[in-house]
Amino acid sequence: MPRRPAVVLLSGGLDSTTTLALAIEQGFEAHALTVRYGQRHGAEISRAAEQAVRLGARQHRIVDVDLAFAGGSALTDRTIPVPRSGDQAAGEIPVTYVPARNTVLLALALAWAETLGAGDVFIGANVLDYSGYPDCRPEFFEAFERLGNLATRSGVEGRPLRIRAPLLDMTKAEIVREALRLGVDLGRTLSCYDPDPSGAPCGACEACRLRAKGFREAGVSDPSVGAP
Amino acid sequence: MPRRPAVVLLSGGLDSTTTLALAIEQGFEAHALTVRYGQRHGAEISRAAEQAVRLGARQHRIVDVDLAFAGGSALTDRTIPVPRSGDQAAGEIPVTYVPARNTVLLALALAWAETLGAGDVFIGANVLDYSGYPDCRPEFFEAFERLGNLATRSGVEGRPLRIRAPLLDMTKAEIVREALRLGVDLGRTLSCYDPDPSGAPCGACEACRLRAKGFREAGVSDPSVGAP
Repeated sequence: MPRRPAVVLLSGGLDSTTTLALAIEQGFEAHALTVRYGQRHGAEISRAAEQAVRLGARQHRIVDVDLAFAGGSALTDRTIPVPRSGDQAAGEIPVTYVPARNTVLLALALAWAETLGAGDVFIGANVLDYSGYPDCRPEFFEAFERLGNLATRSGVEGRPLRIRAPLLDMTKAEIVREALRLGVDLGRTLSCYDPDPSGAPCGACEACRLRAKGFREAGVSDPSVGAP
Repeated sequence: MPRRPAVVLLSGGLDSTTTLALAIEQGFEAHALTVRYGQRHGAEISRAAEQAVRLGARQHRIVDVDLAFAGGSALTDRTIPVPRSGDQAAGEIPVTYVPARNTVLLALALAWAETLGAGDVFIGANVLDYSGYPDCRPEFFEAFERLGNLATRSGVEGRPLRIRAPLLDMTKAEIVREALRLGVDLGRTLSCYDPDPSGAPCGACEACRLRAKGFREAGVSDPSVGAP
């Protein structure tokens, strides 16, 4: 049976790389899509390219959209510092939130899914993200799926679209274990919001702290972090 | 009373320019957004810039996203010819349909609306477009509005988003009359899918034919079309 095509959003971080491995394990022909949206670092883009090849994606495309035009996020606006401490107020939306980011990522994935004839779009959103980011909540993905079915030729013609966020309910520790089970080369994933030019993680931003907590709770060491 | 900010998607064509004029008439402070999405012609971009200034937009931004990466449309793929005749089958989605185009445009507008604190996004979709394009139907815009309210900080904090498509139920003739009432400089709008390098409309594509029919039915001549 031929494998069904799926678009997989791939940033080169722990979550999206694990999602790509899962999609391939589930029998999909994976078309990896990396969106360079004006984030400060290009290092994760090259990790994405590496992982797409290593995991056996059918193809990998990189598309540019400069979300910096809209401003408002520490990830795209160099005048807003990336927070280094854990003092964000509970329930507050982090300054690293990029306005409408997942809507833009999924919209681009939807465009490609339509021309590929793919009925599935994978995104590596997870439970820890959605504690602060409105566009990581399950109801957001359900609403996007509904939108996608109205927006496209495929939807109109009765081939439904599925938005798959297989990590949504996992903790970071569960994701680390899943990545290890799937043989993901974790040393070549990059989660940091603010790495140095060589691609080394800062170790202090929220993404680094969440990742470190995940590895700690999973009881394994993170091969992407140099020994002290 | 200060005017409320709104994002207005502006391509420089008849519909979006009229929409911008309407938004300003309705008392909004208009932030015009032009998305250069890999369409073949740049001429409409310069018309958009001209119209934004002329109509009194508060600001105008141009953002690039290369939808050609996804292929599948005569408007972004140079290997697919733009149809010149009217022989498209009834009910068929035209080859000029750009996959997920309005989803991408609205996602980018949503990002900017969020950082501007704007609760309204205007788009110049209309009834004639949605005869063939799935993402010009009223239920698509309703679904996007619902999505936008789940996707954003504003939505979470109880400031609802409105997607406004004021031309949705108008015929092209009604839009022409509305544009004239609003004082839009129609000679400097460009609707053609395939203009020559100077920005002159081809006169034969579906957009040109719809526009010509609109002017004919409105009983006025189109100042953008040179006398024979």
